[in-house]
Amino acid sequence: MPEHPDIRIDVSNMMAPHLPGGTERAAFEGGMADRFGRAFDEVALRRKRGEMGFFDLPYASETVDQVEGLANGFGQWFEDVVVLGIGGSGLGSLTLRDALCGPLWNERSDEKRDHFPRLRIIDNPDPDTVRALLDHLDPARTLFNVVSKSGSTAETMAQYLATRDWVERGLGEDEARGHFLFTTDPGRGALRQIAESEGIPTLSVPENVGGRFSVLSSVGLFPAAACGVDVRALLAGAAAMEARCRSRKLVDNPAGVLAALLHAAHTESGRSVHVFMPYADRLRSLALWFQQLWAESLGKEGGGPTPLASVGATDQHSLLQLLMEGPRDKVVLFAGIEREDDVDIPERHPEMPGLAYLGGHGLGELLDVERAATAEALRREGRANLSIQLPGVTPHALGQSLMLLQIATVYAGGLYGVDPLDQPGVELGKTLTYGLMGRDGFEAPELDAGDPRWRF
Amino acid sequence: MPEHPDIRIDVSNMMAPHLPGGTERAAFEGGMADRFGRAFDEVALRRKRGEMGFFDLPYASETVDQVEGLANGFGQWFEDVVVLGIGGSGLGSLTLRDALCGPLWNERSDEKRDHFPRLRIIDNPDPDTVRALLDHLDPARTLFNVVSKSGSTAETMAQYLATRDWVERGLGEDEARGHFLFTTDPGRGALRQIAESEGIPTLSVPENVGGRFSVLSSVGLFPAAACGVDVRALLAGAAAMEARCRSRKLVDNPAGVLAALLHAAHTESGRSVHVFMPYADRLRSLALWFQQLWAESLGKEGGGPTPLASVGATDQHSLLQLLMEGPRDKVVLFAGIEREDDVDIPERHPEMPGLAYLGGHGLGELLDVERAATAEALRREGRANLSIQLPGVTPHALGQSLMLLQIATVYAGGLYGVDPLDQPGVELGKTLTYGLMGRDGFEAPELDAGDPRWRF
Repeated sequence: MPEHPDIRIDVSNMMAPHLPGGTERAAFEGGMADRFGRAFDEVALRRKRGEMGFFDLPYASETVDQVEGLANGFGQWFEDVVVLGIGGSGLGSLTLRDALCGPLWNERSDEKRDHFPRLRIIDNPDPDTVRALLDHLDPARTLFNVVSKSGSTAETMAQYLATRDWVERGLGEDEARGHFLFTTDPGRGALRQIAESEGIPTLSVPENVGGRFSVLSSVGLFPAAACGVDVRALLAGAAAMEARCRSRKLVDNPAGVLAALLHAAHTESGRSVHVFMPYADRLRSLALWFQQLWAESLGKEGGGPTPLASVGATDQHSLLQLLMEGPRDKVVLFAGIEREDDVDIPERHPEMPGLAYLGGHGLGELLDVERAATAEALRREGRANLSIQLPGVTPHALGQSLMLLQIATVYAGGLYGVDPLDQPGVELGKTLTYGLMGRDGFEAPELDAGDPRWRF
Repeated sequence: MPEHPDIRIDVSNMMAPHLPGGTERAAFEGGMADRFGRAFDEVALRRKRGEMGFFDLPYASETVDQVEGLANGFGQWFEDVVVLGIGGSGLGSLTLRDALCGPLWNERSDEKRDHFPRLRIIDNPDPDTVRALLDHLDPARTLFNVVSKSGSTAETMAQYLATRDWVERGLGEDEARGHFLFTTDPGRGALRQIAESEGIPTLSVPENVGGRFSVLSSVGLFPAAACGVDVRALLAGAAAMEARCRSRKLVDNPAGVLAALLHAAHTESGRSVHVFMPYADRLRSLALWFQQLWAESLGKEGGGPTPLASVGATDQHSLLQLLMEGPRDKVVLFAGIEREDDVDIPERHPEMPGLAYLGGHGLGELLDVERAATAEALRREGRANLSIQLPGVTPHALGQSLMLLQIATVYAGGLYGVDPLDQPGVELGKTLTYGLMGRDGFEAPELDAGDPRWRF
């Protein structure tokens, strides 16, 4: 086995005759491959124009040097690293922490964390959360990593102002400065300005990398590196996947296969709900990360699929009924992992048929069997699904997965005929918020008052 | 203001003329009210027949006496209470803990938890999670509450076998018994049998209460009571809502209004995705609980809506683009809360327009403004939404919310013409799992082998 095996995708359960009513080989090799070729060309052109910086992040060796320098020398001095960031500015580090640091990271003793800091991602300006957090932390041993590409995200800046005040009250103005690190645009925005005037350390998000494509930039890398994650292996995995996705020929491009099949399932068979269902607690946050990536990149111009983050086996007891017998409007993307260690299920109660069969197996084995059984049950009912198999939850395999899903997303943008890099739909809500908060230059909007008769 | 104010629902943004293209008053008062009347009758009949036990849980005073007796005398002796339960057996206690114990409960010091135990819900037989947990816990101070109505749920029984073994290795066979509590069927199943033969304490789930309707039974009540939650106030809130939902007249029945509007939005306007989006971290798990309830109750016979759990303001940076500019196939259910305490945003940088406007407001105020702005932005784009307002995240208000959503679910079952209490679609996957695990009486199934050409 190679040192870093590839992740593998099996789409048999999308295809006829394995899936009753599934995609025909001729369609895959014909129209689908042609449409993919055009989407590939569009992506290649935009990449060449320098608009799709995420492709190049695995090769940004200066960035990784800088991130590691800062993480090792500075970040790891703290006991708590707190990321203040929302959307793509928080989901990347959440995904890396949960996958690569493993369960209960923040509750482990210092020794069981190998003396790396705890990592908290505060992605909501919720006063209950912020109050509980500040009540819990020691300002003297806490670093706040404020992450906002624009440097003016309302939620993140509000959190920054509140926490900065708290640190200054605890440690004094001078010392407070040493407890902040800004990750923001290289040239513009309020965070950049503050950093320059106050001498606060910063990391840059490349101008051509948007929030939801930033997990492999300093946005995701710094918090992960601070907690001891091997970010070079993560980037090597991403590079390996980038290299696997250079072909214009559909059958030779795994991200293309994903994008083309999901797009066709939606536009040709009405399967508009794309359920991402890893069978591993460590990948729960990856499902949330994918949900944002897929929704915000493709949900525009009146179209776009609805991604649904999920986890197995848990959601067999929540969503499976709907997946099996609800409308045929879904595709399930299973993700499984190779396991090195399992937890044994001991043999007890051989007299009880409802328990006896479990003994001698392992918990991970049960998870894997349930995944196979669920995929097969869906297939038999004509419910489309596919499986992604990771060779372990390693930095390299996660890097591959993140790059696979990002490349699939920009291909899907081409197939859906939308720009996967913008998010014009969030502007109206922002403008109304500014108006309601009394921001200069924004008028207080008139809100529809509703009707008291429609209140219950 | 009354001691326990009612939660309020505002559906103006579902209705014409407030929502362009929304439901007309005539439709609401005509066909919709008629259809609701019939669904109401069906529910009333099934309730009378004793099939819908969840309606009666708020009045089960013997249960609450027993739960509190056990929680106070026994449950609170431990430092860690671990619920082993999947689906409805885990989501109820997760919802209660996150809402009512508040953020960072498990990380707080003993004093800041008022000496109540930590509460962990292990809802997946994931070996990484279970290993990390057992590595972290002290068996001498841990109680495992094994929750399975049937007493034979594969995932939960596997977790039970592994943890029982671990406790016995740590404490010896005799003492281990005192570290388990089973919540299960009053008469049947493996857990009941084991409890009887080994003298393990138990709580019962009434026979006519299914997993996803069990949050107000001993399933949800014991773990909450162990952590000091006022479960009597929770049940009083549920009773208050049950009393508010006794009318056959649609306009006088808040659960009916919810069910009828969501059903009509789906079946008449194609709004099949129902996004539950509370603007409070404490209600994140309530959204997951609703997701299970809505999906498993209604997703059958080829129909049923797709619920999507979400949280604001966070998911304004994830799903909002799709909600605003994607297909018009969604309804957003906002939930907001009245707040007593806020966290101030200090005034800094009056010279920076991107920050200055935030100062002098509060984080909670920002959340509430964003919710209002987002609802209004959706309305202006003709995107249906409604708002539920809680008078604080109190046990009473949460009890109201849980009962409201449960009653709406059984009404919706009547409107969709399906049985909201069953889940026949999960059986095939279970049978295949049993076969693959070698359970007596189950044949090893033949799985479709797929096609190597569809592996990438």
